[in-house]
Amino acid sequence: MQSVLRFGMVGGGEGSLIGDIHARGAMFDRRNVLTAGCFSRDPAKSAITGEKYGIDPDRLYATYREMAEKEAAREDRIHFVVIVTPNNSHYEIAKVFLLHGIHVVCDKPVTIEESEARELETLANERGLLFGVTYTYSGYPMVKQAREIVKQGEIGDIISVMAEYPQEWVLHAAAPSWRMDARQGKSCCVADIGVHVAHTVSYITGLEIETLCADLQSHGTLMELDNNANIMVKYTSGATGMYWCSQVAPGSKNGLKIRLFGTKGSLEWQHERSEELQLSILGKPFQLLSRGRDPMYPAAAAFNRLPGGHPEGLYEAFANIYAAFSGELLKLLRDGKLTGAEPEDYPRISEGADGVRFIDKCLESSEKGAVWVKYDAASAPERTVQPV
Amino acid sequence: MQSVLRFGMVGGGEGSLIGDIHARGAMFDRRNVLTAGCFSRDPAKSAITGEKYGIDPDRLYATYREMAEKEAAREDRIHFVVIVTPNNSHYEIAKVFLLHGIHVVCDKPVTIEESEARELETLANERGLLFGVTYTYSGYPMVKQAREIVKQGEIGDIISVMAEYPQEWVLHAAAPSWRMDARQGKSCCVADIGVHVAHTVSYITGLEIETLCADLQSHGTLMELDNNANIMVKYTSGATGMYWCSQVAPGSKNGLKIRLFGTKGSLEWQHERSEELQLSILGKPFQLLSRGRDPMYPAAAAFNRLPGGHPEGLYEAFANIYAAFSGELLKLLRDGKLTGAEPEDYPRISEGADGVRFIDKCLESSEKGAVWVKYDAASAPERTVQPV
Amino acid sequence: MQSVLRFGMVGGGEGSLIGDIHARGAMFDRRNVLTAGCFSRDPAKSAITGEKYGIDPDRLYATYREMAEKEAAREDRIHFVVIVTPNNSHYEIAKVFLLHGIHVVCDKPVTIEESEARELETLANERGLLFGVTYTYSGYPMVKQAREIVKQGEIGDIISVMAEYPQEWVLHAAAPSWRMDARQGKSCCVADIGVHVAHTVSYITGLEIETLCADLQSHGTLMELDNNANIMVKYTSGATGMYWCSQVAPGSKNGLKIRLFGTKGSLEWQHERSEELQLSILGKPFQLLSRGRDPMYPAAAAFNRLPGGHPEGLYEAFANIYAAFSGELLKLLRDGKLTGAEPEDYPRISEGADGVRFIDKCLESSEKGAVWVKYDAASAPERTVQPV
Amino acid sequence: MQSVLRFGMVGGGEGSLIGDIHARGAMFDRRNVLTAGCFSRDPAKSAITGEKYGIDPDRLYATYREMAEKEAAREDRIHFVVIVTPNNSHYEIAKVFLLHGIHVVCDKPVTIEESEARELETLANERGLLFGVTYTYSGYPMVKQAREIVKQGEIGDIISVMAEYPQEWVLHAAAPSWRMDARQGKSCCVADIGVHVAHTVSYITGLEIETLCADLQSHGTLMELDNNANIMVKYTSGATGMYWCSQVAPGSKNGLKIRLFGTKGSLEWQHERSEELQLSILGKPFQLLSRGRDPMYPAAAAFNRLPGGHPEGLYEAFANIYAAFSGELLKLLRDGKLTGAEPEDYPRISEGADGVRFIDKCLESSEKGAVWVKYDAASAPERTVQPV
Repeated sequence: MQSVLRFGMVGGGEGSLIGDIHARGAMFDRRNVLTAGCFSRDPAKSAITGEKYGIDPDRLYATYREMAEKEAAREDRIHFVVIVTPNNSHYEIAKVFLLHGIHVVCDKPVTIEESEARELETLANERGLLFGVTYTYSGYPMVKQAREIVKQGEIGDIISVMAEYPQEWVLHAAAPSWRMDARQGKSCCVADIGVHVAHTVSYITGLEIETLCADLQSHGTLMELDNNANIMVKYTSGATGMYWCSQVAPGSKNGLKIRLFGTKGSLEWQHERSEELQLSILGKPFQLLSRGRDPMYPAAAAFNRLPGGHPEGLYEAFANIYAAFSGELLKLLRDGKLTGAEPEDYPRISEGADGVRFIDKCLESSEKGAVWVKYDAASAPERTVQPV
Repeated sequence: MQSVLRFGMVGGGEGSLIGDIHARGAMFDRRNVLTAGCFSRDPAKSAITGEKYGIDPDRLYATYREMAEKEAAREDRIHFVVIVTPNNSHYEIAKVFLLHGIHVVCDKPVTIEESEARELETLANERGLLFGVTYTYSGYPMVKQAREIVKQGEIGDIISVMAEYPQEWVLHAAAPSWRMDARQGKSCCVADIGVHVAHTVSYITGLEIETLCADLQSHGTLMELDNNANIMVKYTSGATGMYWCSQVAPGSKNGLKIRLFGTKGSLEWQHERSEELQLSILGKPFQLLSRGRDPMYPAAAAFNRLPGGHPEGLYEAFANIYAAFSGELLKLLRDGKLTGAEPEDYPRISEGADGVRFIDKCLESSEKGAVWVKYDAASAPERTVQPV
Repeated sequence: MQSVLRFGMVGGGEGSLIGDIHARGAMFDRRNVLTAGCFSRDPAKSAITGEKYGIDPDRLYATYREMAEKEAAREDRIHFVVIVTPNNSHYEIAKVFLLHGIHVVCDKPVTIEESEARELETLANERGLLFGVTYTYSGYPMVKQAREIVKQGEIGDIISVMAEYPQEWVLHAAAPSWRMDARQGKSCCVADIGVHVAHTVSYITGLEIETLCADLQSHGTLMELDNNANIMVKYTSGATGMYWCSQVAPGSKNGLKIRLFGTKGSLEWQHERSEELQLSILGKPFQLLSRGRDPMYPAAAAFNRLPGGHPEGLYEAFANIYAAFSGELLKLLRDGKLTGAEPEDYPRISEGADGVRFIDKCLESSEKGAVWVKYDAASAPERTVQPV
Repeated sequence: MQSVLRFGMVGGGEGSLIGDIHARGAMFDRRNVLTAGCFSRDPAKSAITGEKYGIDPDRLYATYREMAEKEAAREDRIHFVVIVTPNNSHYEIAKVFLLHGIHVVCDKPVTIEESEARELETLANERGLLFGVTYTYSGYPMVKQAREIVKQGEIGDIISVMAEYPQEWVLHAAAPSWRMDARQGKSCCVADIGVHVAHTVSYITGLEIETLCADLQSHGTLMELDNNANIMVKYTSGATGMYWCSQVAPGSKNGLKIRLFGTKGSLEWQHERSEELQLSILGKPFQLLSRGRDPMYPAAAAFNRLPGGHPEGLYEAFANIYAAFSGELLKLLRDGKLTGAEPEDYPRISEGADGVRFIDKCLESSEKGAVWVKYDAASAPERTVQPV
């Protein structure tokens, strides 16, 4: 389809993998076009990226504040901004753009403090602005199919959740990265990949955590922050779960795997077999569902792009999130408001804030000796919101 | 990177999956931009597609001839054309564009007769024009890695090739498709997917067929042409192979699988596990190589886009073919000629012609009672080339 | 159950793997007890084996002829003999025991010439003696389940068979083995493992070969006989198949794999996943059937020993063949005759003879240049049967 | 080999799966012969089983006490007894046989209270008697190979253990079984399968638990005892682990899976792929090790029976435990004492007692609200040992 929505990007300068993925994802369907940017603090670097994307040099900005102000003042202003900077800058950047009336898509974890994310949520709601958070895995059609299968009761009431996200990169790391830096964040492993575990489970099942018990560790000599986390959860429904995320698990790449065991059946999705879903119904043979071949519920099938057996992948998962976000934004622009009747399927700022709570609760539990902590906001430290 | 090459498309109107895949593949890296088109014989349909792609209505053409002529006359003419029409029209369309000095990318099988393809090859060579053929699977990084592994001798001399491409769609078909129509082609199964088997084997191994013996069958009531083919081959090296392609194989999606057995080891790649390569070296444990995680030869690694564990898929395979084609085209435009020293890695018209020979030889063998036929061009029927 | 049938063994002396497997298989259910033997031409070696099995030294024989004669003369004679000598001695040994009224179980290939096997078949039938042939793979419960699934029409009419048995051992071999020796047999690969492919396909499907076309090769320096065979078959039903067996396929162990594609579905069994069956029904998701967990037809379920998820293996497959053979023998001994109404499920001498024909036809086709040969006995060379 | 050791069995009457498995396992290598029994409290039932095994009616006993006394008094007394009765009777039966100087093999969990097991351990040690406990999974050659790989440092220091044993049978159960009965035991799931998780991890890694935190639940209406357990552990080495065992996990059969992540590599073994071991070494491709094909350490290779690609299974795992137990017993009988220099590889009563501690600690933690409990014997309730 023809590009009709203009967007800008903060971060994502030369060499940024995540910036490139967002740009490709956002433009995959040709609905959105990258039109402005503040790709780097280094103007030369930002210029290179701008040129790569064919951006008018007038719309390359030295700071995100300048970008927000000048774009807001243009008639052909960007419709939304994509924030792909280090985590500890998300909050301020997002806030500035919201204050200038510009819709936001931000990478996860959306902020460092839950209170920041809740503040952004309030701000977006007050101003009628959209705020998407790129929890990548919820963009995969078979994750959406898993969600529908659960919703339709095919596996009954969930008894048990086994979810994990192992990686191995920390064991390879020759030097510390910003992710490991205690000055730039409070958590490495839970913040980077644990939130994906928590979000994907929540997205598929709707289960709400009641209490959790987390044992976070830091292995190796480079680390200041956690790189391995064992977590047990109890949900409000009475179901329980075990989550494991690790950056020190040799042989793992991006091994997100979600297994759900219910009273009638079980379900498994794993990222590295993203086109498949394993379904076992009590008393029936094990089934392997293939995206594009086997029947899918409409809410999942809507995101199919290729016939079965022609692999889709990560770019398409991002594209799906952007397709839903843009779809909602187009409705809003067209109608002036959203009825909320048929919300598009993309992760929102409230889910972003939930992710930050998950990180906080894991840290809190672990610091207290891996004790069970209640999963409410109450224990979060009061926070004075910084003026922009 | 910024779009610098303009291309047009013939075919690919609304509802065309393959047109959409080519467009996304060609534009994936933002190097090429779709600028002109003759998407359908139906002008209304063509207009819809043109609008979707944001094409200047002036550059929407009623016929491919008009498109070739008018584009050739423009200063900002398209650099190349992508042909995604039914197979029996490829030859004439490609010829017209070549005669107007426009580079070509064409889907496979590139023509109906080998002589047509050889004529196009001659024409392109004479005029110094590029002619790419989209043998999709050669665009996957792990197929390229397989090629390098063979080239480096890791599995020794190849003894045996087992290759197959099963699908199931014909058993689902409620009505005949153009693919099954004897007036539009000579073969259904071998032409559509058998050529992928032959090309992928040839691409990876460099083996040349000396003789083959093919038993083509047509199952079901709808079919006029073959939908299941059992093929034995002998290569000039003394190695042998068995190829199977089928459109009546329940449970199969796009099951291209290539297995190579050599004097030192074996190698397996399958499309539905496109990110992996199975390698067994005599006396060593079985290895599963992961794209992006495990060491890759430079010629393969050059096509990596995402880190290991983040799945790539079909769109990226197409994008890789277009990246190599565009790369070569840019060099040619920049330097005025190609030295041939470091050719880019994309399938060319000569490989397209080889594919047509493969179809012809399978048909010839099968029609004679599944006898062994020599794999040379000699037996191809003389053909009077149609004037354009 | 208590041992009630006595059996003897010819061959299987110290160091013989296959002798050990037969002995364990035959005695697995404690119905049969090894009571006599001629384990080796070397009396000392035979004595060691006899002692291992606790055999009365009186019933250790220097030659199989002596064994047949003396056992036949005893009141507590063995009920049956198990023959596990090299292939080219099977015929004479079996004949001697049949002539002495002793039932026979023989390893495959049952003879060198089809005419020998047919003669043994006639002899056994005339004397009312049982003659089992240990086509191992037909003993696996999931192979039996596959047979029932086909019989019940679950996958419709078979269109296509893909079957293979790759191994790698010849590439490891430091010295020639008797299997490779042209003086001891006519074929290495087809005789040793090709017959398993042919039998397992026939056992599961009941398909009868009409013609076949085989290309047998011998790779490496040690070989006198074939070690790689590409075979195409046409069945009388109109279905077709491709068989591959190889002893020069790196990375392969005992990779028997049978895939069947029918008008309604497909089925796959592979030896190294012997507890599973892959079933795809058109329009339904892929199913993985687990022995012991999923419903099985009675004829297959009868051979289940352990609950699902507790692996059974090769010994149990042998035990299943012996259980059926002994079951029939007990009926025969009890009733004096067999009604034939409910035959036990074990491979018989007629299937043994079919296997020899398969070898002969592959050799004949290949020697003639891999041409199609009719699959009847007519072309077999006349053979003067040797007096015992 | 010839049967030289006589054994008896308590429990295992008609219809007992576990009795049959023990009998086959013990006699698999023909070293041991079942000679006496008290198979059931019901003499008629016991007689049927006795006849099946060909046992002299004189050596069929009405009670295990009678059996212990009378066998002890015979010159040709049984060398050892196998106990396969319900768990809560193990202690008394084992004690009686030990007191009569008879060696013991007992199923797991070896007793209900840890103190009982420690008492048996003391008793056996004092009397110089062997006491084996059938932790099945330690009998698999690839589990032994895993142990050697860890021991040799191939995966470095263990960071993390992920282990699980899911089943689904409780969801199928129409009526309560004795396993669920609070009068017959304290735990269902942890006692039945959790101990396998704990033992297999301990066997492979040698890791010692320092503290654990267990959340045991009981799902469904039939249950009195736990059927789902989430457990986090900390080892004395600083490594951590997560264990999950469940009897309410649809789609699971006997899904024991052990994953170990070390500083240099990772290792995975799963019961339903018992012939394989997955090995990932940092910086090297993933490897799949095949029993019988790939090099194995001597201590593991010693238990190989069949060449690679010919599946072994559960019976052989039992046979391996009995082979080691009998081997040691033969040495003891031959030499009058054991030097302890090269102990045979089978699980002993001390490991049995460790398993009971594991159950107790899980129960203790869970009852206290899933808190961390120290993993020592101190907190176990004092227990007055019952006179026999």
